Amino acid sequence: MLKGIGASEGIGIGKALKLLNKPIVYEDISPSDPTEEKKRFESAVKVFCDRNEERAKRMDQLGSDGEILRGHTAMLSDPYMLSQMNELIDNGACAEKAVETVCDTFISIFSATDDELTKQRAVDVRDIKKQLQKILLGIEDVDLSRLPPDTILVVEELTPSMTAEMDKKNVAGIVTEKGGKTSHSAIISRSLKIPAVLSVENALALIQSGKDVIVDGGSGEVYTDVDDALREQFLAARKRFAKKAEEEKKFRGKQTVTKDGVVKKLYANIGSHKELEAVLDGDAEGVGLFRTEFLFMDRNSMPTEEEQFEAYKAVAVGMRGKEVIIRTLDVGGDKNIPYMNLKKEENPFMGFRAIRYCLSNREMYKSQLRAILRASAYGNVSVMVPLVTRVEEIREVREIAEELKNELNVKNIPYKKDIKIGAMIETPAACLIADLLAKYSDFFSIGTNDLTGYIMAADRGNADVGYLYSALDPAVLRAIKHIVSSAVKRGISCGMCGEAAADPRLIPLLVSFGLEEFSVNPSSVLSVRRILSKLDRKTCDEISEKALSMENEKEVSAYLSSLS
Amino acid sequence: MLKGIGASEGIGIGKALKLLNKPIVYEDISPSDPTEEKKRFESAVKVFCDRNEERAKRMDQLGSDGEILRGHTAMLSDPYMLSQMNELIDNGACAEKAVETVCDTFISIFSATDDELTKQRAVDVRDIKKQLQKILLGIEDVDLSRLPPDTILVVEELTPSMTAEMDKKNVAGIVTEKGGKTSHSAIISRSLKIPAVLSVENALALIQSGKDVIVDGGSGEVYTDVDDALREQFLAARKRFAKKAEEEKKFRGKQTVTKDGVVKKLYANIGSHKELEAVLDGDAEGVGLFRTEFLFMDRNSMPTEEEQFEAYKAVAVGMRGKEVIIRTLDVGGDKNIPYMNLKKEENPFMGFRAIRYCLSNREMYKSQLRAILRASAYGNVSVMVPLVTRVEEIREVREIAEELKNELNVKNIPYKKDIKIGAMIETPAACLIADLLAKYSDFFSIGTNDLTGYIMAADRGNADVGYLYSALDPAVLRAIKHIVSSAVKRGISCGMCGEAAADPRLIPLLVSFGLEEFSVNPSSVLSVRRILSKLDRKTCDEISEKALSMENEKEVSAYLSSLS
Repeated sequence: MLKGIGASEGIGIGKALKLLNKPIVYEDISPSDPTEEKKRFESAVKVFCDRNEERAKRMDQLGSDGEILRGHTAMLSDPYMLSQMNELIDNGACAEKAVETVCDTFISIFSATDDELTKQRAVDVRDIKKQLQKILLGIEDVDLSRLPPDTILVVEELTPSMTAEMDKKNVAGIVTEKGGKTSHSAIISRSLKIPAVLSVENALALIQSGKDVIVDGGSGEVYTDVDDALREQFLAARKRFAKKAEEEKKFRGKQTVTKDGVVKKLYANIGSHKELEAVLDGDAEGVGLFRTEFLFMDRNSMPTEEEQFEAYKAVAVGMRGKEVIIRTLDVGGDKNIPYMNLKKEENPFMGFRAIRYCLSNREMYKSQLRAILRASAYGNVSVMVPLVTRVEEIREVREIAEELKNELNVKNIPYKKDIKIGAMIETPAACLIADLLAKYSDFFSIGTNDLTGYIMAADRGNADVGYLYSALDPAVLRAIKHIVSSAVKRGISCGMCGEAAADPRLIPLLVSFGLEEFSVNPSSVLSVRRILSKLDRKTCDEISEKALSMENEKEVSAYLSSLS
Repeated sequence: MLKGIGASEGIGIGKALKLLNKPIVYEDISPSDPTEEKKRFESAVKVFCDRNEERAKRMDQLGSDGEILRGHTAMLSDPYMLSQMNELIDNGACAEKAVETVCDTFISIFSATDDELTKQRAVDVRDIKKQLQKILLGIEDVDLSRLPPDTILVVEELTPSMTAEMDKKNVAGIVTEKGGKTSHSAIISRSLKIPAVLSVENALALIQSGKDVIVDGGSGEVYTDVDDALREQFLAARKRFAKKAEEEKKFRGKQTVTKDGVVKKLYANIGSHKELEAVLDGDAEGVGLFRTEFLFMDRNSMPTEEEQFEAYKAVAVGMRGKEVIIRTLDVGGDKNIPYMNLKKEENPFMGFRAIRYCLSNREMYKSQLRAILRASAYGNVSVMVPLVTRVEEIREVREIAEELKNELNVKNIPYKKDIKIGAMIETPAACLIADLLAKYSDFFSIGTNDLTGYIMAADRGNADVGYLYSALDPAVLRAIKHIVSSAVKRGISCGMCGEAAADPRLIPLLVSFGLEEFSVNPSSVLSVRRILSKLDRKTCDEISEKALSMENEKEVSAYLSSLS
């Protein structure tokens, strides 16, 4: 049995398929016999064309356009391209080198044009080059778009592009070597509802393709020695899980309310306006965390106020009056955003980031706040300030907002007059002075991911200290309790937008503390609604009292797991 | 007026002297006329020998051994070395290159030997090479060992080697471009009692050598426009400061006791057994933090138990029965210690370090604990565990210690049977569960340096977030109060070994909280004893109540500064 991080609940039973990301490396040596080399090249070209046609046909069947792939065959068949490659081989190049040289020439010519369509051809040539070289080197790619039924994918890391290609219906489970509970791999597998276990050390070496494998995405266990008894056991577990999923469906369209009738807000976290559909689909009652970093990344200049306005407005409008909490920019030295002049830092997690950066770059920050204010005219928008450590920070944001409101008033531009400005509570300092911050915040939202990291002095991206990183640690539980109580005392709403808000083990405690809003992954909304419907305050108080009397995370975790 | 970090109190009035660390860079071009080049080389050698002799004489006068420097002259005068260099110039090398090539050959030969004395010669040749190249390139070094009276040194950073050379009696003040309150520069200048202001941006560009400069090491201000009025003002301030220092001397040999008769422990922090003299000289009543990293750094293999034992024993014996708190190894991914296999980490501050590393490297840790236990037979030794985040960690250390004690019992090796094992409280988690940790700790020692960093989520080495890094922040003050109270409630002693323990602004609060032990820089002992002698609990409680009612650091800092 291998052990990793259970990142997407469910039981996967199937056969392993490893995806090795082999680098394209070849020795650049002149072949002894150019004629033989040309033959090797020719047969590679044939394989390429055959495979391509096969894929194109499949795409046609799926209703996609196979013509793009047929274009690749046509391009390679271009007498000029092929003849150039053959000529290079005649002059002593190996086939891999010939492909590289000629393709690179085409790529530079296409890339240098002004015409978008021609530029696109460079991408095609890059694809041809990669495929051909892989065939020559005997590197077999797994065709992700056509997987055998009940495949357990074993990969180093699940990338968004893999997900796009992936034949989802046939993936029974995912095992990765990298990534934690909050990694891309985790988020993707959860949203696809595919059982996943991440950070399994040496998974690619330890698991054999074709072998039976069982993945338990809840416990983080991966079984590679599967006998009949084990299979029976997990088939039963899978049935139970499916039943639960079935039950969750009944909660669609329902109000989120505890057993004893307390109504809770159940929101969703998103990282782009493109996820709006997932939010509506997941039946969330609002957006509790709209990350805005996507607008600033993978580009060469600051997004304009207009661009930002459009993105914020899209979500505000799309949510039709439901609350949308937009978090202002949260970047730091660990992100490579050239135009922002972020310095490389020794400890970026404890560096010049989020609201610290924003308050030092006022004009940029004003343009974001102005875009949010303007978008607030189109829906129920709130502002959330990340990484608050001092009272002054939230006060300064409020002052800037007032200034901008006055400007908008003068220009007669509409905005939500009573827009709420809240603080994300994710530093130990913010927790310690929660009572003071509550005076200047319209609401709190606890960011458990970072809060846990800072409290435990453990970087969640660092596997060596992963054992310390848990929101169920007594220290973190006490911090959460203190934050919620401070909000309750002051009469402001307190939510949670970290991963922990969807953790069935933690939810009873959050109910006991008095948490009002749960903001979770869109795909977890129904699950959380179901869990909440079964809880009442009295039971939760008892559970909470017992859990908080324990001295260590292991005990807490075992106790809470035994309940759910 | 320039502003930096006041790192060593006092007023320095004098003339600026800049120390530019120019890199040795030359263009490796064949000279057009080798004969001319040889002449240039020859005159450089003459300058070298003259200068060397002059320095040697000065060292003789100071009672040091000038023979080392005369050895350099002899070595260079070695016909083989000189003739090789001349030959290279004849063959087209420039003089700088000739020096480099020949010296490097000598260095490799000397370094490759097994004999320590011969190896030492490599260091000499390296020195010769550097000096000669500097002369050739016209790079003038300031002679640190002979400075004009009332020199204000302006340097990028103060290194330990500079300090060794420095003509201390003539240095009236130090200004650096780099370093914070806890940097090497800060520690050195404080221990030399030279007023110092660090992290003055562009100091080397903004201050002119020879100009009048006033350094206020308390406020962190550097005045470069000095008129008579200003000079008078600071001469008076210097007098007051000298008076205070004079007053402090009266506290030598006295008990540390508050105005209302409460006895406190006043200890010193050290980073090596070599600082024992400074501790005794400073009149400390014990060692509150004996860092052990020095034993593990700048070497190629783990120190043996024996080596460690000797170092720990030296301090235990030297302190003659006074308490010596030895902190077990505190290293992490930010330290380059090849034999420890520490990985480079994204956020080393929140990584696999200190007790986390030690509990995963049991044999190494056992050898350190065994060495400490054995040394405890020779004095009043205690053990302190750094970076505690969980109850399990301190419990595990206790278990290991019990195991080792049993081993020592069997072998009849003596140790202090009731040796105390305490926790360094420096993570937010440890603060939050201080009541639980107190059950398994014989004492607490608050590490304010790291605690402040984690609470504020601000790396103290990162100048961009330096404004957030303050132990006077309401969040940090609340944390400190909570930790001390938890210790008091449980009846265990609580100390503080961070920089803050010597801060006159913070001390009244620490007295009010009930802190029992203050562990400070050896040179701050008398100052803290004097401050404590003037405080009584009732006044401190009033001060504390007022300070803790404030919402932000600025207010707290202004209020507390107004009192001292």
